[in-house]
Amino acid sequence: MQKTSYSAALVIIGNEILSGRTQDRNTSWLAEKLSERGISLREVRIIPDIEEVIVNTVNALRAQETYVFTTGGIGPTHDDITAASIAKAFGVDLELNERALQALIDHYGDPAEVTDARKKMAMIPDGASLIDNPVSGAPGFLIGNVYVMAGVPRIMQGMFDGFVHTLAEGVPIISQSITCSLQESQISEGLASIQGRFADVDIGSYPNFRGGEAGVSIVVRSIDVASVKAAGKEVINLMQSLGVEPSAVTHLD
Amino acid sequence: MQKTSYSAALVIIGNEILSGRTQDRNTSWLAEKLSERGISLREVRIIPDIEEVIVNTVNALRAQETYVFTTGGIGPTHDDITAASIAKAFGVDLELNERALQALIDHYGDPAEVTDARKKMAMIPDGASLIDNPVSGAPGFLIGNVYVMAGVPRIMQGMFDGFVHTLAEGVPIISQSITCSLQESQISEGLASIQGRFADVDIGSYPNFRGGEAGVSIVVRSIDVASVKAAGKEVINLMQSLGVEPSAVTHLD
Repeated sequence: MQKTSYSAALVIIGNEILSGRTQDRNTSWLAEKLSERGISLREVRIIPDIEEVIVNTVNALRAQETYVFTTGGIGPTHDDITAASIAKAFGVDLELNERALQALIDHYGDPAEVTDARKKMAMIPDGASLIDNPVSGAPGFLIGNVYVMAGVPRIMQGMFDGFVHTLAEGVPIISQSITCSLQESQISEGLASIQGRFADVDIGSYPNFRGGEAGVSIVVRSIDVASVKAAGKEVINLMQSLGVEPSAVTHLD
Repeated sequence: MQKTSYSAALVIIGNEILSGRTQDRNTSWLAEKLSERGISLREVRIIPDIEEVIVNTVNALRAQETYVFTTGGIGPTHDDITAASIAKAFGVDLELNERALQALIDHYGDPAEVTDARKKMAMIPDGASLIDNPVSGAPGFLIGNVYVMAGVPRIMQGMFDGFVHTLAEGVPIISQSITCSLQESQISEGLASIQGRFADVDIGSYPNFRGGEAGVSIVVRSIDVASVKAAGKEVINLMQSLGVEPSAVTHLD
């Protein structure tokens, strides 16, 4: 996997993903956004709503990566334990945050609407800064290098789009995907040879079986656009040398 | 999260998920199948094709859970390093497995078709037993408590369906989902009270914002069907006490 200067891990907190009830849609969205920013997503962990697991997972990953992003568990119900768990991970108190409370009052339009249940969403670890929620009021927060976001995709995306410009900007990874009707095993030797000649390029091979017919997509990735072009050209030559034209080649922008 | 007697972790190996190119579809499918078998999926990790990461991840999880399932990285190309990494994790050699080789010959119909590239898919850790691949020939394998499967969903599913009857059978989790048009924060106190009275039930609350309207699904889960029924009835009563009829209630089978 290509290394950029900055790395990230994503922690998806929620029993509903582990039970199969809910299909995770946050990983692929965040992965693309981070890639555009030149930040490598190096690991994703999907974990249950259990305090000890959240604490251990976040503490392990925040020591390893530039950024940790979490999604899920910051709502008003009893099973929303992310904020309290993150406070524990950092060894700080969970406190009623006045700015978070004001954000809720602004959202609901009336202080009386901010019931005790809703006030739970203004309980934020001491020392954290808030992440705006443009959709449903209740903020996320940033503490250390850990960004705590909602799990609902639309809210998570709104939060991320609001702070992405504050993240470090690495060299974005350029990629090109080349698809053909060969089987993986027909081009594996040639591919390994190309990989051997391009140390700064990451060549991935992804088989598919659409309509029962075997095919393969080769993805060439690098921070260096010239290397992607050169390696991509060799992949196309390899396919042609085996008598097959690529059925799809993505453009480099 | 409800505990059953048996637990599992899933390790998804593949740069294509971490780059955002491919949407993972294996987690939700496996989560449901494991749940039906009474095995709790306790953690999912999505990791890159890097030997050290695969070794460390698998070794950490196989010590913690009844079963570890891996998907991805067992094809014929240079980026398929799962079998070698698992061998390293167990401290055994990777060897040409005669039965795996025969499976490939049977699949391709001619020994001459099993090229050196394809023979890579018959390299299996010493001491592992094979997992049949009903789709594309190349087998997965089982070593210790680690089941190594293909990443392509259709192949992974075929492999899993072939060995699921050999897994330990726990008490399956029964669940009921109750949806209404209330906001989460309107029922959070009542829900916490119900949760407090049902120690053997796991009550999850999942907000949605379909068409801009807030709603919530409450999921009641337990290994005890009577407890699910009793807690579910209280959740319905709670919604009705707030003037709202549930818009959907799943049946218990």
